Amino acid sequence: MDADILITNTLLLPDPGNSTLIQSGCVAIDGGTIIYAGPMEQYGDRRAKRVLDGRGMLTMPGLVNLHGHAPMTLFRGLADDLELADWLSNHIFPAEADHVNPEMVYWCSTLAAAEMILSGTTTTADGYFLETEVAHAYADAGLRAVAAQGIIDFPAPGVPDPKDNVEAAASFLDAWQGKNPLIKPALFAHSPYTCANTTLQRAKDLAREYNVQLYIHVAETEQEIAMIKEPLGPTPIQHLQALGILDTQTICVHCTWADDNDMDILAGQGSPVILCPQSNLKLASGMADLPLMLAKGVRVGLGTDGCASNNSLDMFREMDVCAKVQKLHKLDPVAVPAKKILAMATTDGAFLSGFPGHTGVLAAGQPADIILLDLQQPHLTPFHTSDLLVYAAGGSDVRTVIINGRLVLEQGRLLTINIKETLNRVRAMAIAVQ
Amino acid sequence: MDADILITNTLLLPDPGNSTLIQSGCVAIDGGTIIYAGPMEQYGDRRAKRVLDGRGMLTMPGLVNLHGHAPMTLFRGLADDLELADWLSNHIFPAEADHVNPEMVYWCSTLAAAEMILSGTTTTADGYFLETEVAHAYADAGLRAVAAQGIIDFPAPGVPDPKDNVEAAASFLDAWQGKNPLIKPALFAHSPYTCANTTLQRAKDLAREYNVQLYIHVAETEQEIAMIKEPLGPTPIQHLQALGILDTQTICVHCTWADDNDMDILAGQGSPVILCPQSNLKLASGMADLPLMLAKGVRVGLGTDGCASNNSLDMFREMDVCAKVQKLHKLDPVAVPAKKILAMATTDGAFLSGFPGHTGVLAAGQPADIILLDLQQPHLTPFHTSDLLVYAAGGSDVRTVIINGRLVLEQGRLLTINIKETLNRVRAMAIAVQ
Repeated sequence: MDADILITNTLLLPDPGNSTLIQSGCVAIDGGTIIYAGPMEQYGDRRAKRVLDGRGMLTMPGLVNLHGHAPMTLFRGLADDLELADWLSNHIFPAEADHVNPEMVYWCSTLAAAEMILSGTTTTADGYFLETEVAHAYADAGLRAVAAQGIIDFPAPGVPDPKDNVEAAASFLDAWQGKNPLIKPALFAHSPYTCANTTLQRAKDLAREYNVQLYIHVAETEQEIAMIKEPLGPTPIQHLQALGILDTQTICVHCTWADDNDMDILAGQGSPVILCPQSNLKLASGMADLPLMLAKGVRVGLGTDGCASNNSLDMFREMDVCAKVQKLHKLDPVAVPAKKILAMATTDGAFLSGFPGHTGVLAAGQPADIILLDLQQPHLTPFHTSDLLVYAAGGSDVRTVIINGRLVLEQGRLLTINIKETLNRVRAMAIAVQ
Repeated sequence: MDADILITNTLLLPDPGNSTLIQSGCVAIDGGTIIYAGPMEQYGDRRAKRVLDGRGMLTMPGLVNLHGHAPMTLFRGLADDLELADWLSNHIFPAEADHVNPEMVYWCSTLAAAEMILSGTTTTADGYFLETEVAHAYADAGLRAVAAQGIIDFPAPGVPDPKDNVEAAASFLDAWQGKNPLIKPALFAHSPYTCANTTLQRAKDLAREYNVQLYIHVAETEQEIAMIKEPLGPTPIQHLQALGILDTQTICVHCTWADDNDMDILAGQGSPVILCPQSNLKLASGMADLPLMLAKGVRVGLGTDGCASNNSLDMFREMDVCAKVQKLHKLDPVAVPAKKILAMATTDGAFLSGFPGHTGVLAAGQPADIILLDLQQPHLTPFHTSDLLVYAAGGSDVRTVIINGRLVLEQGRLLTINIKETLNRVRAMAIAVQ
């Protein structure tokens, strides 16, 4: 069978968690699926409709960014160097009340999609309000995405009366379930301190009814631990467990302050954890004990968080900071090796995203989510090991991106997004935000 | 007077520590010196031999990277995820014994120069052996550099017998003092645990005789604190103080474990400190208390360290990590604000580098060390504040670099380095290093 796309003569990293490099590799793609990934000479001289010359490039699976709030690109750098409570209550929530509307959500999410594609992210999970506009933006960009409609017990964009929050989420699920193979709808309950017990339970009931994921910020700050402790139970994670909410489809974001017992609960319930180390650093929230989480068998993915608390969506930076900060946190230079960090951002993340058959490995039969990096650069020379993808590479090294077999970035040029229009529209909106 | 180079219509950040942006600015350069930096309309329509269109760009002072070991680009990623003692004794020192020679030092330093220029560094301080080859490489690249010849009580490249180490350093100073206005020779005593008291004192005597800086790794790891404590004195910094070595020309690198009293000594003696946060994280050495250092009046600069312990020479990454990690370390999101981090990497660093009149500010009469960044990118949009230079920008955003009035990078193209030859030569050497 002839391939639609053939990537030739490339340095190939088929499975980032394993770090084996194939020196002269090729990848063949038919439709949305990889039909071959391995040494060139074993593929033979079969033809392809489109050949991408991979010389001087490294080809690897696309990165998976499992937590974001795409429209918040508008608030990038708006209120840096502040505490979470002050940042949320006095800056972000008021800015959202004034500036979030469907047009803003669509264009600012398109900007986020551009930033992620340019830096090698091919799968993401987002949580926001007016999420249908995020889903449209990501669908138009060709990004593979979990789009989760926000639920919070406060007036929110598109849901002026909080008593309608779960119903609004149900309408969102109705609109998007089964509509686009690259867009998987889900729910996003903001946190145990902004959602009442009944709200959390109704949200989880809805998620179970539709068989979709429920994302929730939990155990993010020491203040949250204190807030939950008095009225609700020993820890935020035990609180969720007591409400019957934790299972493999409930994705716990942050878990910065998860204690030993919390991790046992998360491992026992199979609830994934998404760490956002740069956001946790920037807001001085704290740092999760990743080696202990992994030792206990918790499944962990990585996310950038919204870019108002980061301020970038570059997963290469997230990997680097995650790896290095864990070494400091544990005063152990082997705390989490680079190849495990790479696995979290590719194979582990792909599994946690919940797209059927999405393994984050380049192998026959897998979805064709692939990125090519330019190795002809001083900061990647010499290239002794794939560790450099964590400790030296950056999103700007990505030149070409394929998602589900579709070229979305070619030699640095975005093919699915009008970037000039997007930058201009977001800049025009930003003038009003100061 | 007509300018040699005129940068027009640019977003101008003349003094990064102050964060005031000029929307439509220009910079005029005559010879090696800035003759105007400010609003376009106040410059009038004077002519220039060369006009650089600054539309869509941010123009700011070049970055100052005050600690590196340039030839170690050859060992980038060679031995990641190891402890300092193991990394040094079992990997780096043996690799250096086998592979360091003048040709290696020249080409690997040229690679470092390329990486630094491409990522916006215009001034650096280096410490290594066979440092004359580093100085040649940096001179050829047009980089402004302090080049410090290494002194250690072990056999070292170019100094097989350690009893010759101070004499070899004297020859280096003789060769380079006053030779090139952009290359300032200096000394680099490796550390208090690898240099005997007499070696340290002879090195400092030599530095005083030639009026040059003496760099030294000190208080880097907890093990070093323990090693010094028994035979030599309470702390490594008190040890150096007792030897009479600390003054404004002794630059203390790392100081990760400097205690309250150590900081008082450093402030009292006016000895600058260079932090290398990414190296300290990667080797799990620990983290300095930067807010306390600054509060006590210690002058602090930033460095990347050698790229075997980082593994990149990108100062934008170093700023980002430094700012964020201090927030975690102090659990305080305002620990060190972004603009102070920017000052450390520009104005403070320029002062500490010790080049006469080098202030790291874009203003008339200052040396013309200038970088231009491309703002037409999603991850820098919207550009509400110069904080984004710390929290979102990367070295790859740099397009054009001017050092001492000379264009060394133009629209991403290196003008002083044959990058293809450099990459090929380093790759050829790297094959033998595994």
